[in-house]
Amino acid sequence: MLVVMKQGATPEQIDRVCAWIKERGYTPQPMPGAQRTAVGLVGNDGRVDGSPLEDFPGVAEVIYVSNPYKQVSREWKHESTIVEIAPGVRFGGTDVPIIAGPCSVESEEQIVTVAQQVKAAGAVALRGGAFKPRSSPYSFQGLGKKGLELLALAKRETGLPIVTEAMDEAGAELVAEFADCIQIGARNMQNYSLLKVAGKLKKPVLLKRGMAATIQDLLLSAEYILAEGNPNVILCERGLRSFDTTSRNLFDLTAIPVVQQLSHLPIVADPSHGTGRRDKVLAMSRAAIAAGADGILIEVHPRPEKAMSDGAQSQTPEQFAETVVQLRRVAAAIDRAIAS
Amino acid sequence: MLVVMKQGATPEQIDRVCAWIKERGYTPQPMPGAQRTAVGLVGNDGRVDGSPLEDFPGVAEVIYVSNPYKQVSREWKHESTIVEIAPGVRFGGTDVPIIAGPCSVESEEQIVTVAQQVKAAGAVALRGGAFKPRSSPYSFQGLGKKGLELLALAKRETGLPIVTEAMDEAGAELVAEFADCIQIGARNMQNYSLLKVAGKLKKPVLLKRGMAATIQDLLLSAEYILAEGNPNVILCERGLRSFDTTSRNLFDLTAIPVVQQLSHLPIVADPSHGTGRRDKVLAMSRAAIAAGADGILIEVHPRPEKAMSDGAQSQTPEQFAETVVQLRRVAAAIDRAIAS
Amino acid sequence: MLVVMKQGATPEQIDRVCAWIKERGYTPQPMPGAQRTAVGLVGNDGRVDGSPLEDFPGVAEVIYVSNPYKQVSREWKHESTIVEIAPGVRFGGTDVPIIAGPCSVESEEQIVTVAQQVKAAGAVALRGGAFKPRSSPYSFQGLGKKGLELLALAKRETGLPIVTEAMDEAGAELVAEFADCIQIGARNMQNYSLLKVAGKLKKPVLLKRGMAATIQDLLLSAEYILAEGNPNVILCERGLRSFDTTSRNLFDLTAIPVVQQLSHLPIVADPSHGTGRRDKVLAMSRAAIAAGADGILIEVHPRPEKAMSDGAQSQTPEQFAETVVQLRRVAAAIDRAIAS
Amino acid sequence: MLVVMKQGATPEQIDRVCAWIKERGYTPQPMPGAQRTAVGLVGNDGRVDGSPLEDFPGVAEVIYVSNPYKQVSREWKHESTIVEIAPGVRFGGTDVPIIAGPCSVESEEQIVTVAQQVKAAGAVALRGGAFKPRSSPYSFQGLGKKGLELLALAKRETGLPIVTEAMDEAGAELVAEFADCIQIGARNMQNYSLLKVAGKLKKPVLLKRGMAATIQDLLLSAEYILAEGNPNVILCERGLRSFDTTSRNLFDLTAIPVVQQLSHLPIVADPSHGTGRRDKVLAMSRAAIAAGADGILIEVHPRPEKAMSDGAQSQTPEQFAETVVQLRRVAAAIDRAIAS
Repeated sequence: MLVVMKQGATPEQIDRVCAWIKERGYTPQPMPGAQRTAVGLVGNDGRVDGSPLEDFPGVAEVIYVSNPYKQVSREWKHESTIVEIAPGVRFGGTDVPIIAGPCSVESEEQIVTVAQQVKAAGAVALRGGAFKPRSSPYSFQGLGKKGLELLALAKRETGLPIVTEAMDEAGAELVAEFADCIQIGARNMQNYSLLKVAGKLKKPVLLKRGMAATIQDLLLSAEYILAEGNPNVILCERGLRSFDTTSRNLFDLTAIPVVQQLSHLPIVADPSHGTGRRDKVLAMSRAAIAAGADGILIEVHPRPEKAMSDGAQSQTPEQFAETVVQLRRVAAAIDRAIAS
Repeated sequence: MLVVMKQGATPEQIDRVCAWIKERGYTPQPMPGAQRTAVGLVGNDGRVDGSPLEDFPGVAEVIYVSNPYKQVSREWKHESTIVEIAPGVRFGGTDVPIIAGPCSVESEEQIVTVAQQVKAAGAVALRGGAFKPRSSPYSFQGLGKKGLELLALAKRETGLPIVTEAMDEAGAELVAEFADCIQIGARNMQNYSLLKVAGKLKKPVLLKRGMAATIQDLLLSAEYILAEGNPNVILCERGLRSFDTTSRNLFDLTAIPVVQQLSHLPIVADPSHGTGRRDKVLAMSRAAIAAGADGILIEVHPRPEKAMSDGAQSQTPEQFAETVVQLRRVAAAIDRAIAS
Repeated sequence: MLVVMKQGATPEQIDRVCAWIKERGYTPQPMPGAQRTAVGLVGNDGRVDGSPLEDFPGVAEVIYVSNPYKQVSREWKHESTIVEIAPGVRFGGTDVPIIAGPCSVESEEQIVTVAQQVKAAGAVALRGGAFKPRSSPYSFQGLGKKGLELLALAKRETGLPIVTEAMDEAGAELVAEFADCIQIGARNMQNYSLLKVAGKLKKPVLLKRGMAATIQDLLLSAEYILAEGNPNVILCERGLRSFDTTSRNLFDLTAIPVVQQLSHLPIVADPSHGTGRRDKVLAMSRAAIAAGADGILIEVHPRPEKAMSDGAQSQTPEQFAETVVQLRRVAAAIDRAIAS
Repeated sequence: MLVVMKQGATPEQIDRVCAWIKERGYTPQPMPGAQRTAVGLVGNDGRVDGSPLEDFPGVAEVIYVSNPYKQVSREWKHESTIVEIAPGVRFGGTDVPIIAGPCSVESEEQIVTVAQQVKAAGAVALRGGAFKPRSSPYSFQGLGKKGLELLALAKRETGLPIVTEAMDEAGAELVAEFADCIQIGARNMQNYSLLKVAGKLKKPVLLKRGMAATIQDLLLSAEYILAEGNPNVILCERGLRSFDTTSRNLFDLTAIPVVQQLSHLPIVADPSHGTGRRDKVLAMSRAAIAAGADGILIEVHPRPEKAMSDGAQSQTPEQFAETVVQLRRVAAAIDRAIAS
């Protein structure tokens, strides 16, 4: 339930609504907006009758939300949200930014080289994992803080903002010191403790869809972040678990127009994980742009055959450069442009 | 196992290979090609040692096929197959034909009107079901032969070739009399008796991927048709069964580049079934073109809200016209063109 | 919509209801029962208001069916249906019959031997494929009519009734001459033409659930058979398509109590296909009994390592004998018994 | 790669092996056992040739592990692991313990009452959530520390050991103070930071399979816990994401014999989440026992219709008592017993 206050409602009026909610055993959540304040009633599964509030001074209307998510929905905020992770690098507008870089940060030489290469080719943000969620405890787990420092170095060399993953509370705080955008991986999409921390850190968050998550699950996980006061969430489609082994995952591009209809948040696509095969990334990143993606995330490695993780799906710098050229043409065909 | 004969091998040499295969309890299948003849050994699961054949007169080489499919594979035929369903309407080349029309043929007025509308907008073939596979025995099952006659009428009025579904042996023979291309639906993708009939009829076949079929399953089903001597098969991605209800199916566009790598057969996409939602068809047909689809299949109904089946996913003629305009731009961006 | 007539309603009264339905453009389907006749309105998707019929002479009530299936539902027929495929071999009662035999009929010696072995161990029906739906056209497709004749021979030798698969119209008629129960395989579960033929043939039908079929899909397919006048349908759970390769399929035993709640038809389980691994069949057939299965279908081969199909999931005769011993104990623990 | 030392190998010999591994850039992980010490080479994806180690003093053999998991596998430890969460409450032996209790701890009266009820009926451990991972941030999230204190109170009243979920690092430490067994939920199965913490805490862990996790994924997640030195892991099957809505999840009972073949760890089944429907829990818990489950987890609420979460799948105390009676019979039929 959302209690929408009138424009110019006083703090006292808002407090009175909050008090009413508290008396019924729920937590009020005031959400100040540019035009108006709304007060969410947290924990209501439809059992609270909010009609008495309609007569309270300062109350404009009481909205019973049919979807379980609220603040992420287009009913709640009609205009698309634009998330700016660094000056000029904006997701959700007409221009489509490309984030590129290796799966893992491996060395200074590797990350600086690839950062320069992807920048030259047209990427406007650098990805690279310092903390890696790996299925096996015996696989390479990332360089940790050293990896974050190397990302910072690559940023100084190229100016590219950094997108990198956090796996836990402590890690998220550390990542927030170095990164321009905190990635939450598919395996942690329903790690609600991590989502709450990401909500409190206020940095932009790139939230990847889980391997068997419905669109509603994804939006509810984003809601956790917004509910903590952080509206800067970029959603990401990266493929679902499938029975077919010709691709690593089942890339669900229909999620893009579906999310854009249900939510005001931007959604980007990751064809590297979506397909898991380097030679499918070009076709499927073109398809993602044509489907309306608000950004593209591509794994690029200077020497994919030597990558410590995900080599099979990483493009070479040359392949990536050709991909950007083609994406520019497809974006233009739908009256958008690759951000530069 | 495939025994590839030398160019100019004599009938007697081919017969001797066939006899050797028969002696071992298998069926030989001679497959004459433009350049050379090959003899397939049907039923071999890897237990036949073909090395003695290498010394037979007229034998060029013996190929042990690692994939279970043979004639549909790119190893077997490198150049892409072009399937021409009517003069000039060709699938598998640079130009991308659009097939459009209603889910079901409902009346003369309906089918002729929509045929004229989709032709005017840019479609080059007409779809429409006369025999409808419906989950419930109590749902509208199509007009049957009357529907085929109405399709023939619409063809006379517009010149558009006809693509329509056959559900069984008797139906396939009837459909073959009226249609330019016989559709085999997703639910019948592994109806091997029907596939064999379609192989014998020699008309082009549009074979839809089943709801839980792997790419290998799809290619093996196509192999049934080719094994009967009919090389004119168009594959079709139309969405998989999914746990998410925001779309009717999970549209697997990655299947397009995957199939194009493994097989020489053309593959088209059906965003109407792939998404099940009229307002997602535009975005996802653009995505299908960008992914490299060799054709697009779109459901269009003069008044979708009155359709006897699949109304929720049918575009209006106006929406379809706008879709074609946009597809032309996307096709051009990848150096292809919408066929006209 | 179902129009239920009073006991003793006259043919004229029934005709009048049928005429009313025809006038509205639908097909009436009279369904005579032991107690009363009902008239189904075929093709109604909820758009027909049947209230005028309530005042017709001889009409007891008009039922608007909320589920899309009708005659298979427990609302329509409360007491469980018992399907007797041969004298004393009954599915749906307290006793649980076991059907056993090889995947394919391969030779007289093989089928007669295994028939004697499974009978000695406790099976009361013999399975064995004469027509085999195989993914590849080059795999062994069964012995065809010769296979049916060998099954008939094995029946004469052992007295075991025969369950064997039909793949198409012509095959179904042939199978009906030899078999006591016609199996329709998972790949043909939505081959509606075949379902209609099976409905007309009046022999008991064992209908396997498709690899991605919902319970509702399965019940609707059974409805096709009942709608043709054949009430003797046994449903079969045999595993769904899954992303995990440790089993061949994902065996959905919860389908058993779910179907038993929604439908009056018996449901059996096939742990051989459900798991795809011989060494899992014992545990999962015990589990199927404990879940309430009305029958068990087990693949047994005299020498599984030489089987022409499905060897990996076939039990040896010794394993099968041990399985039956254990199933007797589990059945007793839930107050049922293995049929003998 | 695992380097197995001889019995009586000296610390110096072990150190020399570790040093060799470090020189090659990997992390050695000594794992002392009752009989012998082994040294794991962490991070080897098959690129290290360990043959030189075979000649080192004190080395018995070098094992190249083909599966990506090691310490959880039956090759590594043949005899089944018995996890004792409290004196006499043992998972993995012949006796099968039942864990029961509400989804969430809601009040002192609720948890103490239900603890007494499930104990009387035959449960030997109490479950109940204090920290609840909920899809929506606005749903009831559990009572937190207060919930843990109420569980401790219920334990004092009944003697039942406590199984309760931890969602993050801080929570895990708090839960470890109160609980006898720490549950890690399906959504956190690949929250590797949490798994590592659980490994360090040394309390028994009940690890639930994720909604789209393969058996291999599940075993690898368990490996994270064992790799930190905690061998007391109980695995749990609780249903997979499915396309069918007649059940909440798709309960994969075949996972039980599959896991028991691949791993020495005990595996329990949760039919409450597995089916999501109270009236299916009895049949499916019987099936789980018959499949060989090493324990059963059942949600029981004094008044399910008033439960703050998962009411639809919670049994009443009376239903639970009847379930235990039936499970005793099924367990006896496979020569096991319900633990008491």
